[in-house]
Amino acid sequence: MTRKLALEDLSVGDTFESAEHVMEADAIIAFASEFDPQPFHTDPVAAKDSFFGTLVASGWHTGAVSMRLLTESLPFEHGVIGSGGPLTWASPVYPGDALRVLTRIEEIVPSRSKPGRARVVVHCQTVDQAGEVKQDFRPNLMVWSRDVDPQG
Amino acid sequence: MTRKLALEDLSVGDTFESAEHVMEADAIIAFASEFDPQPFHTDPVAAKDSFFGTLVASGWHTGAVSMRLLTESLPFEHGVIGSGGPLTWASPVYPGDALRVLTRIEEIVPSRSKPGRARVVVHCQTVDQAGEVKQDFRPNLMVWSRDVDPQG
Repeated sequence: MTRKLALEDLSVGDTFESAEHVMEADAIIAFASEFDPQPFHTDPVAAKDSFFGTLVASGWHTGAVSMRLLTESLPFEHGVIGSGGPLTWASPVYPGDALRVLTRIEEIVPSRSKPGRARVVVHCQTVDQAGEVKQDFRPNLMVWSRDVDPQG
Repeated sequence: MTRKLALEDLSVGDTFESAEHVMEADAIIAFASEFDPQPFHTDPVAAKDSFFGTLVASGWHTGAVSMRLLTESLPFEHGVIGSGGPLTWASPVYPGDALRVLTRIEEIVPSRSKPGRARVVVHCQTVDQAGEVKQDFRPNLMVWSRDVDPQG
């Protein structure tokens, strides 16, 4: 069993790479039907007349899949807990694209008021099988030292 | 039938308000089981020992539901097409919270290279039944004039 990571295990420049997740057309349509019901996300025929010219995934679907990949690739002791950050959908995600998330620790800012707790800025790039960046996200995460209780 | 909005119908300061969507515990757990499988999003008992102390929605679930509410409340002719922007999950979303999205047009930046097309910055706040801000998002949207073909 891999030991989970606490604040003292992290350094600026550390990198993490997730497994791959293929965006199937059925899943793109199912997600968008519930959360982003626009023709270019739900209807391959109507999508031809849209700005995109073909079916593409909702950005929120790409974000949600990226979160799944992130939870699997950042083994933080108390979980991956973020308060958001700058989010860019850099290019469209098409059916069949195989997404991976590449993460780099950019900044570690210890809390002044709460010892043993830090804000950790990570740069998460969601790339496809060709390495093209599809989503770029720089969330602020909360991370704790091993001996600190997050409920404390 | 409401006429859909094109670029010439929009002004800085225009506001839009969505319908309400209640975040049920079952839906919070189902979304997170697929996209953000962490105990504080999937297991009401284990969540008690987490930072949050109780079950909370994945931020990506809040984002996805907000997108649904946005597509229903911004009747843009060619759809709500965004390339992202600063995203903050301001406070946790709990089971039973009734979310609404309040949108204000912040900026309209006509394209210099593509006539009849503009980048429109909107400020979208997802609030609960008490008006507390749960998510704050300032995406860049693409909007076209009525006589312009987005595929042109």
